[in-house]
Amino acid sequence: MSEREQVTELAKRRGFFFQTAEAYGGVAGFYTYGPTGAALKENVQDAWRERFAVQEGHMEIESPTVMPEPVFEASGHLEGFDDMLIECPECGSSHRADHLVEDATEMEEAEALEPEEIAGIIAEHDILCPACGGRLADEPVGEFNLMFETNIGPGTASPGYLRPETAQGIFVEFPRLKEYARNQLPFGATQIGPAYRNEISPRKGLVRLREFTQAELELFIDPETDEPPLEDVTSVELPLYSADAQTDGDRGVETVPAGDAVESGTIESAWIGYYLAISLKFYERIGVDLDRFRFRQHLGGERAHYASDCWDAEAEVDGDWIELTGYAYRSDYDLRKHDEYADDDFTVFKEYDEPVKTRSATVNPDMSYLGPKYGEDAGIIASKLEEIAERNPGLFEEAEDDLAIPVLFDDDEIESKYEGELVPLDKIHFEIEEVTKTGEHLLPHVIEPSFGIDRLIYTVITHAYREDELAGEERTYLELPPAIAPTFVGVFPLMARDGLDERATDLANELRAAGFAVAYDEAGSIGRRYRRQDEVGTPYCLTVDYDTFDDETVTIRDRDTAAQRRIPIDGLAELLTELREGDRRFEDVGVAVADA
Amino acid sequence: MSEREQVTELAKRRGFFFQTAEAYGGVAGFYTYGPTGAALKENVQDAWRERFAVQEGHMEIESPTVMPEPVFEASGHLEGFDDMLIECPECGSSHRADHLVEDATEMEEAEALEPEEIAGIIAEHDILCPACGGRLADEPVGEFNLMFETNIGPGTASPGYLRPETAQGIFVEFPRLKEYARNQLPFGATQIGPAYRNEISPRKGLVRLREFTQAELELFIDPETDEPPLEDVTSVELPLYSADAQTDGDRGVETVPAGDAVESGTIESAWIGYYLAISLKFYERIGVDLDRFRFRQHLGGERAHYASDCWDAEAEVDGDWIELTGYAYRSDYDLRKHDEYADDDFTVFKEYDEPVKTRSATVNPDMSYLGPKYGEDAGIIASKLEEIAERNPGLFEEAEDDLAIPVLFDDDEIESKYEGELVPLDKIHFEIEEVTKTGEHLLPHVIEPSFGIDRLIYTVITHAYREDELAGEERTYLELPPAIAPTFVGVFPLMARDGLDERATDLANELRAAGFAVAYDEAGSIGRRYRRQDEVGTPYCLTVDYDTFDDETVTIRDRDTAAQRRIPIDGLAELLTELREGDRRFEDVGVAVADA
Repeated sequence: MSEREQVTELAKRRGFFFQTAEAYGGVAGFYTYGPTGAALKENVQDAWRERFAVQEGHMEIESPTVMPEPVFEASGHLEGFDDMLIECPECGSSHRADHLVEDATEMEEAEALEPEEIAGIIAEHDILCPACGGRLADEPVGEFNLMFETNIGPGTASPGYLRPETAQGIFVEFPRLKEYARNQLPFGATQIGPAYRNEISPRKGLVRLREFTQAELELFIDPETDEPPLEDVTSVELPLYSADAQTDGDRGVETVPAGDAVESGTIESAWIGYYLAISLKFYERIGVDLDRFRFRQHLGGERAHYASDCWDAEAEVDGDWIELTGYAYRSDYDLRKHDEYADDDFTVFKEYDEPVKTRSATVNPDMSYLGPKYGEDAGIIASKLEEIAERNPGLFEEAEDDLAIPVLFDDDEIESKYEGELVPLDKIHFEIEEVTKTGEHLLPHVIEPSFGIDRLIYTVITHAYREDELAGEERTYLELPPAIAPTFVGVFPLMARDGLDERATDLANELRAAGFAVAYDEAGSIGRRYRRQDEVGTPYCLTVDYDTFDDETVTIRDRDTAAQRRIPIDGLAELLTELREGDRRFEDVGVAVADA
Repeated sequence: MSEREQVTELAKRRGFFFQTAEAYGGVAGFYTYGPTGAALKENVQDAWRERFAVQEGHMEIESPTVMPEPVFEASGHLEGFDDMLIECPECGSSHRADHLVEDATEMEEAEALEPEEIAGIIAEHDILCPACGGRLADEPVGEFNLMFETNIGPGTASPGYLRPETAQGIFVEFPRLKEYARNQLPFGATQIGPAYRNEISPRKGLVRLREFTQAELELFIDPETDEPPLEDVTSVELPLYSADAQTDGDRGVETVPAGDAVESGTIESAWIGYYLAISLKFYERIGVDLDRFRFRQHLGGERAHYASDCWDAEAEVDGDWIELTGYAYRSDYDLRKHDEYADDDFTVFKEYDEPVKTRSATVNPDMSYLGPKYGEDAGIIASKLEEIAERNPGLFEEAEDDLAIPVLFDDDEIESKYEGELVPLDKIHFEIEEVTKTGEHLLPHVIEPSFGIDRLIYTVITHAYREDELAGEERTYLELPPAIAPTFVGVFPLMARDGLDERATDLANELRAAGFAVAYDEAGSIGRRYRRQDEVGTPYCLTVDYDTFDDETVTIRDRDTAAQRRIPIDGLAELLTELREGDRRFEDVGVAVADA
């Protein structure tokens, strides 16, 4: 079995995830998390929230998944969130035209081509329908918008869309969020929740879903002054696969301290450098194998026009590199668009430390002079004079003599009409005033780390997957970090009788009350019960046996080594906490017992 | 201001909730949770999860919000999830026809009438359009399906719907969930997540949303044998507003111990009684005012045909009673429908305690005898004989003689054809075998408590809203329980200088690391900072001042009384934990200081 088949099979058998509504044949691109998967996902989300919202001091919000059309007119999704679609004339199936081209040729990144070019290549190579073998050569390649569309209320007057990203729910509320931040930059807002992408023909299971979970952080900064606390992470070693390394004969991944990467300009934005560094620690903590992980910089062609520096966190699974997180410096693109389209103020008023005195130049042309002299052109000339006063006051200020009209106006018609004419300075009434400004309105720039939670879950399970042999039997287990394992401790009675089950049930309930995720299991042999917990990645199991009644001890078993030790029930919660936090090693607790 | 206006205004000002995308004019029925609201919601959901999933030992799953059409064909939502729609011919606005009738007449529950009856009443009362005053009398009243519709993939071949309840995501996966439960009833599955209802014209803010959050529990039971642990809750006093009390001259709410209510039959299902009791404790814990709370039984006409006992938890807000939770005994309706429509097995194989021996009767008619004798009727006669053996074996068993064909067959044609003919018993080869059955397939019954989280949030904030006077100034605060308050403790430096800010920042970070929700604030006077925390319901605030440097103490202030006491920083996390858990009273910590 391939790595993917192994993980998918385990995921189904043990309740991590499976295709939704298989009883009805399923629908591509939709998956359901079973009990273990939902718990793992919740733990990963909590860890994300703790690191990227709480520790960073950012606000978390929750906005609806359905949003009205004007939001996506402004964001650009209505116009540009497309994939290339080709439909088979024989069987009616739909395909991503660029993927067909990539599969049939050596080409990569066919997405970057125009639909007509793709249609040309399909015709040239006489590419056939993968579903039925029908000819696609003469079929048109269209643009298919990837937002799920619906209608809000009866009729079609108010279209709504399932959000393609959680970010827009943050951007549209910026006028309110800046109030909660008391107009102080930088500040950040996060959101965890569903997002949608109506893929033409999804493949790859949990890696490319039509409905998925994003965790996004939008940091709003003043690009002139705000700097990240890079000093906190300067020595974090980042596995970077820079644009240069990709194009320059593929030098591969180079490991560089975060501080150096920013200083040398490999990472252009210090904020991006900061986020890569704290993300690396986060990935490590939740069990991503850093030997199968890299940060890849976007090549020029991959970036949106407004994004100046973009990196992806990528993990290797199933022999492919998949994107876990996108990091983008988005400039003021998002807030500028909403500021233009919406009826609200998306700027922040930035107070200066000290009020700034600036000079304001004005003219007040004497129309009783200009009028008679220039007739119908007098008004044009007057407003041109005002414009110049604002744009280039020096021209008036430094003039020692009357000004020739052709000097003033960059306008062939007026130049030829009034060649040689001079405007007397004393008829212009030029003045300079001192004005005190206390601050200015600015559109914050946005830095966005955008995490795909489902891919992260898939990666974490895949990287934790282990097979070994135990007492001559093959075993599968998940080496999940204790902090995110769906269950932290299994509690078993040796047998479901003689009061062992009551004693074990009580113990399970006590540990639950102490805040641990506990699985109680009394069904089948102890060996089978251990195997079940191994397969869902439970770090420790406790067994209550007849000795427990005598000496108030239980057996604790370690998932990874299958080693067993005997420990007192008294102080158990503290001991488990120490094991979970890594403050104590398993080899150092209680006394060793022979393996089962 | 009305209670509703006060709460809505506070919610906006302090970041609890507000209408989505107000910068674009907003859309009725969609709300966004700001930072304090999202934190409160998360805490309420965690409390729900702890009580209804973890403590009950149920599994939690997470399924997509978009589901394919066949699911809703089976569930009945495609056919019956409708509201009555009337459109104004003048202005084109849409209205709920039954609501117009209720507003214009004394009628309640107009929803129960047929569309034609509603149209009749609108004509009779000459009801006008509430938007423009246009005449609605001759307009048709239609059925509008409340599911948001979309298309999965390109084209319209695969319609999808935003789920109207989280429950269907559980029901469709029953064949897999029962495996995770190892085919043992009872077991429960829960889900917390978005659900959708495309209201014709939503009103009442957070109380009637088009997108809302549900927390649902589906308990699967064997109705013959499974009983709840009612003994654990038997003395919990339930405020019941039974169907009898509602119809019998309105006796009002009667407070009855859960055990008595089940025993007397007021609550028909012991499971419903159990869930009402544990819910009451949950509501109390998260701050619902039990003096503004009741359980109301559905009247006969309100119930779905398959639901035998239905109650709602209702809270009084804004002078109305609103439904917080629905409790329904749904029989085997849900699983039976999916078992019929889907290509999978929705039954549970229930093993008997002891295998049961039953008798199985078979015949093996001698065709070499029947064939020549009855010609083309021989086959019919043989299969009739087999049918009888299965249905009524006694006929053969007790027969002492050959049997007359007319006795065997209830068929006039054959009777007249073979009148007087006898079938010899020895040509039938009748046999009785003993068969051992180890169990049987059964469709579990479902008990469903279904919580609306947004209404609960709205109720909790409304019930916590307080105004008082403090040192001659009016004050607003939220008396939220510490367990769900968005922030548990505010940390302030007396002033943002002289190292007070660094000391307070360190303290805030230490408390965050200890797991508390902390707000650090250094802006404005201490009084203003207290007021800000009062308005978001923060139970305690700590102030670092110059004395802190000398004696390592801080001032702690209690939200509800505004009383202040001086406490040492050493042991602070333990002290705060005791306060949060209610293990220690504020009056008993440290030493009193004069009010600010």
